[in-house]
Amino acid sequence: MSEPASSHSVNTVTQARSRTVTSRDESREMMAVWPDVVRDLTDAGRHLDVPHATKWMAKVLQYNVPSGKKNRGLAVVYAFKKLATHDQLTEENVRLARILGWCVELYQAFFLVEDDIMDGATTRRGQPCWYRQNNIGLSAINDGLLLEQSIFQLLRTHFKDKACYLNLVEVFHENILKTTMGQTLDLISTHFGQKPKLELFTMDQYNAIVKYKTAYYSFVMPVSLAMYFAGITDPEMHRQAKTILLEMGHFFQVQDDFLDCYGDPEVTGKIGTDIQDGKCSWLAVVALQRATPAQKKILEECYGSSDPAKVDRVKQLYNSLGLQTTYSVYEEESYNLMNTHIQQISRGLPHDLFFKFLEKIYRRDS
Amino acid sequence: MSEPASSHSVNTVTQARSRTVTSRDESREMMAVWPDVVRDLTDAGRHLDVPHATKWMAKVLQYNVPSGKKNRGLAVVYAFKKLATHDQLTEENVRLARILGWCVELYQAFFLVEDDIMDGATTRRGQPCWYRQNNIGLSAINDGLLLEQSIFQLLRTHFKDKACYLNLVEVFHENILKTTMGQTLDLISTHFGQKPKLELFTMDQYNAIVKYKTAYYSFVMPVSLAMYFAGITDPEMHRQAKTILLEMGHFFQVQDDFLDCYGDPEVTGKIGTDIQDGKCSWLAVVALQRATPAQKKILEECYGSSDPAKVDRVKQLYNSLGLQTTYSVYEEESYNLMNTHIQQISRGLPHDLFFKFLEKIYRRDS
Repeated sequence: MSEPASSHSVNTVTQARSRTVTSRDESREMMAVWPDVVRDLTDAGRHLDVPHATKWMAKVLQYNVPSGKKNRGLAVVYAFKKLATHDQLTEENVRLARILGWCVELYQAFFLVEDDIMDGATTRRGQPCWYRQNNIGLSAINDGLLLEQSIFQLLRTHFKDKACYLNLVEVFHENILKTTMGQTLDLISTHFGQKPKLELFTMDQYNAIVKYKTAYYSFVMPVSLAMYFAGITDPEMHRQAKTILLEMGHFFQVQDDFLDCYGDPEVTGKIGTDIQDGKCSWLAVVALQRATPAQKKILEECYGSSDPAKVDRVKQLYNSLGLQTTYSVYEEESYNLMNTHIQQISRGLPHDLFFKFLEKIYRRDS
Repeated sequence: MSEPASSHSVNTVTQARSRTVTSRDESREMMAVWPDVVRDLTDAGRHLDVPHATKWMAKVLQYNVPSGKKNRGLAVVYAFKKLATHDQLTEENVRLARILGWCVELYQAFFLVEDDIMDGATTRRGQPCWYRQNNIGLSAINDGLLLEQSIFQLLRTHFKDKACYLNLVEVFHENILKTTMGQTLDLISTHFGQKPKLELFTMDQYNAIVKYKTAYYSFVMPVSLAMYFAGITDPEMHRQAKTILLEMGHFFQVQDDFLDCYGDPEVTGKIGTDIQDGKCSWLAVVALQRATPAQKKILEECYGSSDPAKVDRVKQLYNSLGLQTTYSVYEEESYNLMNTHIQQISRGLPHDLFFKFLEKIYRRDS
């Protein structure tokens, strides 16, 4: 859910510009709430007998939460504004939607802190990963848990008396479990990060990892929270939203995998390492589907190695299998299909909410 | 909350025996429920599209949860039986209390998995720590999260329609936050496990670490859950229970710290490493309170080192400061004080529930 950095027609450029301005404004509005969130979580009168721990919590929050693009958090606010009735759209409720947005950003920060430790990552959002700061090391596991519990503390402080409270809590639980299950699948497919297990790199396995590890929490969860906060509990409406949002999440991850290899580091801001890390990526899975026995052997020898010659050998193989074209066709077809599916939404959900999300990710290059 | 392994009068021996038989029976009853818990958490029809992750979850559960003494889980069942009205004491409710007991055991397993990674521990409950099994390593962080989320899945499956559901969920959240804050304090006092920060080893700091890291979840939480399940929501009753149980939790941890240095490894089943690990233990804090400047210097030089000569130097210092006597006096006085406090409980809570807990920990040697 990155911002579109370039566009493909004059019309879209204008749309993108007005969109960007709106997102930036809302991003500023969310930032304006952040100090209150930190205050709620630190000096709310609870745990006053452990000032050292409370001070530490403030540091953990400040370093790990507000530095991201906040796309997922902003999605909550945007969805709430689209879904709320006129009466619901009060200043107080929009403020609560922003706090709910921060809950989603806390969720994201929690998993990034833990995943970076598990992956041995070095940088995150242009700064050293939290666990690499000073002497923290594995103690950062505990800091991730502080971020996780902050979600539920914020919900309790602000939503306890609302009818949606229990639903919000359960949405977070359900998603933490799903994300964790997705991470389990991912870890199994790489022998716990040791080496890729190519026999597990099937499209079914790929689809399951993406759905659980990314699509649910990045796409379904923000809208699901906004729906409950707007009083929408109809299971059929939730099912319809989930279906289209899982499609978008899948599409987003395929793009991410493509950009990891073929994106411009100047634009994406990161240098891809999926091949070196032996990730079960869309490119690897499609390559394996198409590879001759000889080409499969190349992948077995080279995939998951950090030797530049081997990495290059894998990229050559991707090229010779025509994966760039395959991707372009897939992107176009998926886009058309998602447009059709949005139009088919029949249960009172505003179509433009989903069109807006789709525009934000289609043909992105970062 | 270990079983008493020896007793100090004939009368107590008899009591201890009958107690042990009862605990063993209840332990067996809880074990009989375990396979159903695993089934609920794995093939409940959810996540059927990710069989590999579900199978992995079963492994994580089996290795990490049922192998402990289950004292905290058993405390839930015991407390519920004492607190429930005649009408509430149905077979179905006792079964639910056992499931709630397993939630507490999942909680314990979650923190043990994460703490063992942070501490670089080697064995746990007589087997290698989970993260040391095969290739798991840091991926075990994710397995800890599976255990944590299992708590909330179990609650949802079995308590969703009960009036106490939200209270149970919130008790777990509140305690996870407190335990994590306690771990933060502990980590700060040892420079994130690098070396002890002796200027932070005050009795206040010690009391805060113990309260947050151990006493709340090990003593207050099991009873609090049982009270809510028995329909007891009166804040004053919860406050009274909390006060006495925090005292017991503190007493329990002081014992633990004493036994770490002075316990018989044959009886405790473990070899203490608090001195080597530079832990903020009761012995270290009392020693620092009493030490002359010269003795303080010894502690600064030797505490937190794994050099056997330095460890021995610390133990000699403890001996010369008479800490064994100090401990005996403290144990006796605390016991008497807790007895008085139990008798003062005025709000309808059964005193024998608390006396029973006290008997389980007083003069334990393992």
